[in-house]
This record gives sequence, structure tokens and C-alpha cells, in this order.
Amino acid sequence: MEIHEVEIQNPEPVNVIVGQAHFIKTPEDLYEAIANSVPGVQFGLGFCEASGPCLVRGEGTDPGLRELAMRNALRIGAGHAFIVLVRNAFPINLLRAIRDVPEVVTLFAATSNPLTVLVAKTPRGRAVIGAIDGESAKGVESESQMLERRALVRRIGYKL
Amino acid sequence: MEIHEVEIQNPEPVNVIVGQAHFIKTPEDLYEAIANSVPGVQFGLGFCEASGPCLVRGEGTDPGLRELAMRNALRIGAGHAFIVLVRNAFPINLLRAIRDVPEVVTLFAATSNPLTVLVAKTPRGRAVIGAIDGESAKGVESESQMLERRALVRRIGYKL
Amino acid sequence: MEIHEVEIQNPEPVNVIVGQAHFIKTPEDLYEAIANSVPGVQFGLGFCEASGPCLVRGEGTDPGLRELAMRNALRIGAGHAFIVLVRNAFPINLLRAIRDVPEVVTLFAATSNPLTVLVAKTPRGRAVIGAIDGESAKGVESESQMLERRALVRRIGYKL
Amino acid sequence: MEIHEVEIQNPEPVNVIVGQAHFIKTPEDLYEAIANSVPGVQFGLGFCEASGPCLVRGEGTDPGLRELAMRNALRIGAGHAFIVLVRNAFPINLLRAIRDVPEVVTLFAATSNPLTVLVAKTPRGRAVIGAIDGESAKGVESESQMLERRALVRRIGYKL
Amino acid sequence: MEIHEVEIQNPEPVNVIVGQAHFIKTPEDLYEAIANSVPGVQFGLGFCEASGPCLVRGEGTDPGLRELAMRNALRIGAGHAFIVLVRNAFPINLLRAIRDVPEVVTLFAATSNPLTVLVAKTPRGRAVIGAIDGESAKGVESESQMLERRALVRRIGYKL
Amino acid sequence: MEIHEVEIQNPEPVNVIVGQAHFIKTPEDLYEAIANSVPGVQFGLGFCEASGPCLVRGEGTDPGLRELAMRNALRIGAGHAFIVLVRNAFPINLLRAIRDVPEVVTLFAATSNPLTVLVAKTPRGRAVIGAIDGESAKGVESESQMLERRALVRRIGYKL
Repeated sequence: MEIHEVEIQNPEPVNVIVGQAHFIKTPEDLYEAIANSVPGVQFGLGFCEASGPCLVRGEGTDPGLRELAMRNALRIGAGHAFIVLVRNAFPINLLRAIRDVPEVVTLFAATSNPLTVLVAKTPRGRAVIGAIDGESAKGVESESQMLERRALVRRIGYKL
Repeated sequence: MEIHEVEIQNPEPVNVIVGQAHFIKTPEDLYEAIANSVPGVQFGLGFCEASGPCLVRGEGTDPGLRELAMRNALRIGAGHAFIVLVRNAFPINLLRAIRDVPEVVTLFAATSNPLTVLVAKTPRGRAVIGAIDGESAKGVESESQMLERRALVRRIGYKL
Repeated sequence: MEIHEVEIQNPEPVNVIVGQAHFIKTPEDLYEAIANSVPGVQFGLGFCEASGPCLVRGEGTDPGLRELAMRNALRIGAGHAFIVLVRNAFPINLLRAIRDVPEVVTLFAATSNPLTVLVAKTPRGRAVIGAIDGESAKGVESESQMLERRALVRRIGYKL
Repeated sequence: MEIHEVEIQNPEPVNVIVGQAHFIKTPEDLYEAIANSVPGVQFGLGFCEASGPCLVRGEGTDPGLRELAMRNALRIGAGHAFIVLVRNAFPINLLRAIRDVPEVVTLFAATSNPLTVLVAKTPRGRAVIGAIDGESAKGVESESQMLERRALVRRIGYKL
Repeated sequence: MEIHEVEIQNPEPVNVIVGQAHFIKTPEDLYEAIANSVPGVQFGLGFCEASGPCLVRGEGTDPGLRELAMRNALRIGAGHAFIVLVRNAFPINLLRAIRDVPEVVTLFAATSNPLTVLVAKTPRGRAVIGAIDGESAKGVESESQMLERRALVRRIGYKL
Repeated sequence: MEIHEVEIQNPEPVNVIVGQAHFIKTPEDLYEAIANSVPGVQFGLGFCEASGPCLVRGEGTDPGLRELAMRNALRIGAGHAFIVLVRNAFPINLLRAIRDVPEVVTLFAATSNPLTVLVAKTPRGRAVIGAIDGESAKGVESESQMLERRALVRRIGYKL
């Protein structure tokens, strides 16, 4: 078994969500879940069909993001994995709806950081085993850093 | 650390769901979640107790599927992992209810494809680290394959 | 790529939940989700910021558990991973609320057993790839062990 | 303000679910939610559009149930109310998925009992204010009736 | 049609939740949902069976609360209505789990205030149409009352 | 008991959501749920405190909508009722998050149509018993109207 480090191509960068589903209707259901979540959302997605022709299936409202998502999905290649790229919305706006898609199995990462998907490869096929999301922790916050963190969350309008 | 490729035994085949939970009441709660989901559903499940006697615990409505699920669970062997085998229903009918079981932690795969569970093994114990669900992606769908995919989802009655 | 076995330090022991999220407001949202779930709950949590200063961010109602959670988070170190330590409540009381936090991506384990988190490490960063929760399965329950299991769940008040 | 007692016409009888939603895509989303829940499910639904042409909109897999649901919806007539009639499945199989439809607001009743929907009517329009589901309670169960109730739930396979 | 004002009897007082469900296994499923939510929770519940013997069905961990809940359920009397009385936990600890019970249809109120349930009564049966929870609003908060409200939520530990 | 028809004041108009909750932290939790759902969302909300000073409590990102929501809440006046007014987002973007707020009990309506809230009033207090959302149904769609409806949902981008 080899483990490949698949670096997600994301030049802008936009936000990325990587997960596992099953069933050929995943791309349409993910499309609807995301379109329902944020008005005018610009996104693309790719899903790895895992039997028959084994094609990367794609949908989206933005052709460029759709093509980029499909290309990244092909590089991951693991059966029933999917990837969503979204420009003008954040994962917090979308995860609730994506998790409720009946054929979604699990999520691996949601981030706008550099993202490396770890893919195990055997003669039988491939599996996502994890995702390196941004950088490793370097230390522990101090009391003043804690207060600044809480203040930041309020400044950007998420809490009062 | 070794990584074992545990091929799920599934001769019929039926649909398989593999996940992680915690707590000795998992088998009964999964039983109830599945029995609530589809009338007359035929299934079996196995759950790896992770302390004390460390037995595979099983429930189900179909004795053969129950025994097969328990045997597969033992081969996986990772503490608090579970596997469900279901004959006359699909994962989309069940995942919502399974995710809502309060002791379910995560899911790894849901599929009727050949399934290989990747299990890390150390002297301390075992962990599921991923699952190879069917085959790897081989290419990207064309415009006409996209339209045929959307038509298929409608022919089988999932969308209008 | 190296895979590290990070043994969670948990001397009491208390219950542990390990997961993946994204976004700097994760610690506060997890705090609120847990504080909402059980009156007087004693807990601490640590979350690995994945960009900028990359600090472990912590919250909680119990200073000792908070410090221990942050120390464990730093040892895991994977970007956007989090760990919760909780004394007087069980994962079944908390998982529903934690999963509903909009920035939570996935969970890896929930347990009071000895827990080893498997962390892949590359020059780019780290990723949780799995968790060894307690011990491996050693056998399959008998009919009488099944009945004793069902009776136990009723004796401890979870079913009637 | 008048209050009308709208008796749901349900000759077979089948199971009935009555609720409130909003938005013209409700019928399709309810269709998909129900079709996802139980293989081969036979159902029909009607939804009261609340602006513009104010038509009862219908979908379903069974033409007879669809027509009956639309007729019942017209008799209720309250803006954005809907009704589902389902033959070979039970509300417990469907409610989780129906509640997760993003435009569903609330549910009023789910039952195979005789059902009377209470509809307030003003010159402005109509509102569902409640539903009489079966008969009123006549007394309190005894200890032996409690034990028989618990046994029944187990005989019909919902608990172990 | 008469509308009865059913004042909930609640001498301690404890917290009260009133809702609508369907199906004879409601009392056991509500029991499990609540027992899963808070360790050592003291509660009782009553559910109005809506066909056959039409008995109020009860469960709980506290015999006094169970009896009181059943008595209140009988006074409400509407088919498939239920009431939960809970001593050492709050509705915010329980609502998430109660809503996820597959046969729960809707909730009408959750409060420790004086509670009056409005019950429509016809020769056919009864329906809950609303609930008077505490007192009516008397005015609008000022800026300083807003700040004091936010401070209170933090003093009692729900936000940071 | 009197039943008042409270017409919601909504001159723009914007979308309106009316529901029932409990607990003084409802306004902040609703604020966070909505702010999490759509980037830059403009909204205001009012919540009827049901004990003590019984003030309408308000939050929001838009002062005008906040003031209008509080004024509408006072006119409803029912203990623990709330109303949300939102300008640049739709209820389908928000309902999932609002329902997951742990103190939300139920919803009555979500609409941009004219909305009349039916409020029962007794000497003890008030209760929302229903909501007239837009106009009553006037007829049943034809086959061609059904096809046009499905086409519309696709033209506005919600389905493929």
C-alpha cells in the first residue's frame, strides 16, 4: 500500500470541502444543498463514481470552479470521494446542508488553507485516509491571545 | 504500526455501512434506528466492544446477515468500530437515522461495491483509517455523459 | 510521511472526544454546545489553529481539564483538530450538539478508554488519520452474553 | 374569524402527514425526501401555493394518492400548507427526511387515524391551527397495560 | 367547537415540554431520548394513545413526575399529544434529542413558567392549538437592558 | 378567550419567520445561527420574554429591521414567541440553522407574503395559534402548470 500526498490545486484560493458519499445522484444532491444555502453562491464540485465507467461527475454554478473541482477529484481518485470548491461563501454556511444530504457518509476537511489529501493506494483502489489542513500547531495561546481571539470573533460579527 | 487491508466478505452482495461509535448500547440503538427506517428491513450488524471482554456484539433482523456482520466486525477488530449489512434497503434510506444515534461518532463508508477497510494495528490496538470503496476514478465525464447521468437519476425515480 | 502514535494523556480518566473543525470561533462554539447540553458540566477543550500564529486555542469550565486538553491538542498538532475532555458527562450527552456546531467537520473518537490518535506528519503539516480506542475485539458474543448485554443496558437505565 | 373542521378524506386508509412549508419547490423537495426514505414507496402529496395563481401543486409516485392529496390540500386551502398520503410506509420512516427539507416550517400531524384539520378562515386567508388525530384519551394505563404495551413494541420488532 | 384552557398542574415547579407525536412506542422512545441527554435526569412523561383503548401511556425515572405528567396528559386529552416534566435539567438540554425521536411531529411549548394549553374540542376529539407560556410582553428593552441581558447570559455560563 | 388577527408590518417587504422558543439567550443564539448562515446577511429579530420584566428583546445586523421586528414582536406579545425579518436571504437559507438552536421549540411560518399571526388572548396571557401566510388555494394545477412549475424551479437555479 502506498500513501500519496495529493495537494489540492486552488490558485485563488477559494474554500474547499472534501468528503465521502455514495450513489450516482450525489452531485445533483450536493448541488441542491449548496444552492439552497446561500443566494448566488458560486461553486463547483466533483464526485468519483466508484463502479462501471468510474468517471468523475461534476456540477456547479461556476464553470471554472466546476472544472477545477473535477480535476482535483480525479487526482484524489478514491471511490465515492467528493470535493467542493466555493468562492463567495464559507464552509460554516454549507456544512449543515451538506451533512444532511442522505448519501453523504463523512467529511474530511473544510478550509481555505493549503490542503493536502492523504490517499492510500492499493491494486484494489484508493481511499482518503486524512487531510493536512494548513499548518501544525506551534504553541499554546496566552491569556491575552485568548481575549484577542474572542474579540476578533465579535469584530467580524459572528458573536455579540 | 502495520496497516492491514481487511476485505469485507459480502457474497450476495448486500449494502454495507462501516462506522465508529462508543458504548455498549450501540448495537441495540443501531437496530432500532434501522428498524425505524424501512418497513421489513433485513439486516445484521456487528460492533466491536473496546474494553472488558472485548467481544463483537451483534443484532439484526436476519440471522445470516447478523452472523456475517459479526464475522466482518471481528476481522476489522478496531475498538468501537461497527458494520451493518442490509439486504432490501439502501444506505440513503438509513444514513440519516444512523447518524442520529447519539453514540455514533463517524462513518467510513456506505456502499454495495467491493469494500476494503484499512486498519492500522499497533501493540495497543487497532484503528480504521479509511476504506477503499469500489474502484478508482478513471476519467472525467463528458457533456453527454453528464446528461445521461441526470436522466438515469430520473429514470430510477429519485428526481422529477 | 511519518505516522505518529499520539497517546492521549488522561490520568483520571475522563471522557475524550476528538474531531476536526475549521475557523477560529470553534472553541467558543464548542464551549456553548457543551454548556447547553448538561447542567454544570465540567470540561476543557483545545483546538489547533491552522494558519497565522497556529496556536492551540482553549476554552472550558474546568481550568485543569482545559489545560490538559490544550496540551493534548498541541501533541496532536494537526491543523483544525480539536479535543474535548469532560468529567461529569458522557459522549452520548454531547455528540448531538457537537455535530451540530456549524464548523465541525468530523469526529474521530469518543471514549473513556485509553486513546491513541494516529497522526500523519509531512513537511507540510499533520493530519489525524484515525484513533485507537481501547482494545481490539477478541471474539464473538454468545447467546447468553447477548442477553446479559441487553440486561446491562436496562440495569443502567438507558432502556426499559 | 371562522374555524372550519376539515375532515381528511382517506378511504383506504393510508398514513397522512400534514405540515407547513414555503416556496414553490416544496412539492419536488418533499417528493425527493420521501423517495429517498423507503424503496418503492407509494405516495402522493399536495401543497397550497400562497401567492400568484394560488394553485394546489402535487407530486407523487401513485397517481391515485396524488389526486386524493391534492383534493385534501384544496379543502384545507391554507397558504403554504401541505399534505402527504403514503400507502406502504409509516410516518416514522419519513418524518426525519421531511423535517430536513429546507423549506419545511412545521408539522401538524402524522397518523393513520381519522384526522380533522382545524382551519381558521378570515377574509385575508386561511391558517391551520391544529389537528384532531384519532380519539381523545379516556383513562390512564395500569401497570399490566404498561407491560403489555412494552411487549407489543417488541413483538412488532421495533425494540429488542 | 369549544376551546378549553387546560392549566398545567406543576406545583414545584419543574420544566415542562408539550408536543405531538404518533405511535405507541412514543413513550419508550422519549424515555430513551431524555435518559441519553443528561446523566441522572429525573423526569416523567405522559402520551395520549389515539385509538383502541385510548389510554394515557407513561414512562419516566421519577414516579411522582410520571404520575403528574400522566394526569396532565389526561387533562389535555388530545390524540397523540405528550407532556414531559423534568426536574434537574432544562429544555435546552433535551429538545435536540426529543426532536430527533422519529415519531415526534411537533412541539408546542417548553418552559418553567405557568403554562396553559389551549385545546379545541369537538364531538370527534381534541387538538392542541397553542400554549400560553408565561406572561405577555409589556414593552421593549432599552439599550441598557440589552447590555444587562447579554451580561446575564455570560454570568450564568452559557456564553463567554 | 379572544383571538386577535395580528397583521405583521412589513413595508418593503422582506422575508419573515415566526416561531416559539424559551430562555433569555434566544436572541443571541438566533443572531448567531443567522449570521452563520449567509455572509453579510441583513436581519433583525424580536423575542418576547415571558417572565420578570416581560420585555421584547432584540438583536440583528440591521437597526431598522431590528426595530421593526421588535415592534412586531410586541404586537404578537405571546410569551416566548419570536419573529425574524431578513432582507437579503431567504428562509430556505436559514431554517435549518434556526431549527437547530437548542431553545427553539417550533416555527409557525416563513414567508415574504402578507402574514397575519393568530393570537389567542386570555387574562393569563397570549399564545400564537396559527398564521395566515398569503392567500388561500383557489384550484388545482393542470398538467401543463405542473410542467411550468418544474421548469421554473430549474430556471431560478435550484434544481438541474
